[in-house]
Amino acid sequence: MSQNKDVTIYDIADALNLSTSTVSRALKNHSSISKKTTLKVNEAAAKMQYTPNILASSLRNNKTNTIGVLISRINRPFMSDLISGIEVVAQKAGFNVIIAQSHDSYEDEVNMCQALYNSRVSGVICSLAMETKDTDHFDQFRNKNIPLVFVDRVPKTFTTYRVMIDNYSAGFKAAQHLIEQGYTRIAHIAGLKFRSIYNEREQGYRDALKKYNLPEEDNLIIHVKTMSYEEGEKAVNKLLSLENPPDAIFSSNDTTAVAAIQVAKSRGLRIPEDFGVIGFNNDPISRIIDPGLSTISHPAYEMGKISSKKILKHLKKSKNESITEISFLNTDVIIRGSSKRLKD
Amino acid sequence: MSQNKDVTIYDIADALNLSTSTVSRALKNHSSISKKTTLKVNEAAAKMQYTPNILASSLRNNKTNTIGVLISRINRPFMSDLISGIEVVAQKAGFNVIIAQSHDSYEDEVNMCQALYNSRVSGVICSLAMETKDTDHFDQFRNKNIPLVFVDRVPKTFTTYRVMIDNYSAGFKAAQHLIEQGYTRIAHIAGLKFRSIYNEREQGYRDALKKYNLPEEDNLIIHVKTMSYEEGEKAVNKLLSLENPPDAIFSSNDTTAVAAIQVAKSRGLRIPEDFGVIGFNNDPISRIIDPGLSTISHPAYEMGKISSKKILKHLKKSKNESITEISFLNTDVIIRGSSKRLKD
Repeated sequence: MSQNKDVTIYDIADALNLSTSTVSRALKNHSSISKKTTLKVNEAAAKMQYTPNILASSLRNNKTNTIGVLISRINRPFMSDLISGIEVVAQKAGFNVIIAQSHDSYEDEVNMCQALYNSRVSGVICSLAMETKDTDHFDQFRNKNIPLVFVDRVPKTFTTYRVMIDNYSAGFKAAQHLIEQGYTRIAHIAGLKFRSIYNEREQGYRDALKKYNLPEEDNLIIHVKTMSYEEGEKAVNKLLSLENPPDAIFSSNDTTAVAAIQVAKSRGLRIPEDFGVIGFNNDPISRIIDPGLSTISHPAYEMGKISSKKILKHLKKSKNESITEISFLNTDVIIRGSSKRLKD
Repeated sequence: MSQNKDVTIYDIADALNLSTSTVSRALKNHSSISKKTTLKVNEAAAKMQYTPNILASSLRNNKTNTIGVLISRINRPFMSDLISGIEVVAQKAGFNVIIAQSHDSYEDEVNMCQALYNSRVSGVICSLAMETKDTDHFDQFRNKNIPLVFVDRVPKTFTTYRVMIDNYSAGFKAAQHLIEQGYTRIAHIAGLKFRSIYNEREQGYRDALKKYNLPEEDNLIIHVKTMSYEEGEKAVNKLLSLENPPDAIFSSNDTTAVAAIQVAKSRGLRIPEDFGVIGFNNDPISRIIDPGLSTISHPAYEMGKISSKKILKHLKKSKNESITEISFLNTDVIIRGSSKRLKD
């Protein structure tokens, strides 16, 4: 990551009034550069405390030193934060990161697994596609002792490293917050049931309603396939068209929660007075939409860092050393205008 | 892309009440599946018009059939749209796409070039890092006849396929729109000067001011390094603190334009009455922010499709066949609340 580099070859080039390609070649003792220049560049590099990039050299030694990341979609802030965390740890250790999308499709995920395998990655970090039930396509990594970390959307049964949050308690806390603000008919937009992170959030939500003696009604819960804005719009329109519509909603991501705010506003509901909304992930949009979106903080960046560390540790570990298999991270409720209708 | 697949192995599994892994293996005539089941599955597949994935088979033949995409950052909607366009064409032809980020850093770009090369990609599509001036690191692809397409942020001199928009006329149109709405002191947030797409937009903006006899003032133009929200905030605060502040701004992306709206609002300016804003790219946020952000449509998805097509054509072409080197795409001004202060 550039933020960790103080001196770059640009600075050396500037200081010596040379082109960056000359500096780059001189640092590699390339034969096309005169001895005098090579010496001058290397002296300046030492004086300016330039740290040569470990990565480039390891690559010249023809190891790929690449971590493959397989996720549903890159255009979700959760995913880009996760990848930033993965990269910052990987790059410090001289590893590159390449990214592949499954688009929440099982078949794309199978194909991309094969592509990453053929690209000879040193390790794989994966958050499963919404559709994926069977995980045989990951066997090839385990069989070759290529470390594999599942993060966030993890399989229930595949034994490998897993990095996740406590989704049950996050769901419970989200619903409880709405209840404390006086909402009494709380709907929920959930992901597909067999994807455990969504199922656990839903369980937490259901148990919070039970604890406060509020009705659990199946028609207030809508399961959607990809958690897109369009799916959110459709779900909220359906909920608000019910004979006895909800007065609040807990959405399992911020994209669908933003859709909820927009749909409710367009139907003339005041937020948070008439309708309360809480999302999940704390995407940047939650601070930009009006009113601000209450949400659950999701430590994506931290999860990325831990995932990379597990890959690197596995690559270095001796046969008998054991590495913790599951890491659980905490979440917080972030309260903004979309659900705060009581004064403190 | 899943939208092109009508029948999946899930449908076959459902129809026959088998597990997806059994279906998947039966379709590959795997020895662990009984002959009877294999026959049944293949019959159902034929009947249901299941199209086996070309990709998976080509990968089994040990070609990588992978296009490497090297971009500044995945967390910009322009980039995810570009990648979607790349993927939809690539996947139809049985190619996978892997993605790498340069974070706008020259050194990261050099490293990722090497990583993609080592991953044995069949072709590379690149949008340059903001920092990159010298493009020697791409020579290795040309030397091995691995097709290379530069898209959007292209180098001035490297001779290869390029896919771009007419940035000059886009900048001209953006400034002209603000002028037509009656704004007279129009500031500009630009990218770094040597990155030609930003320089051309700035030229278009300058020429529009000239045409309408408005002052061009250097202190109304701010060049920023990565076009981030934080850079936008800082630039707009600086502009609005001038003794003679601007009454409108043309930002060279939507992220910094959204920052302009937020900063102006927080300073008590009414938008568009007191201060007009137009961005660039038509990111989804431009429809969500209040007021809606006027912007320039950027045909990112189309650019991605064309880029993939050039890679695929090159891979199939005979020695003497020539492929158009530069493709230019058009843009449109999209007018929303942030700049529309006159009635039609």
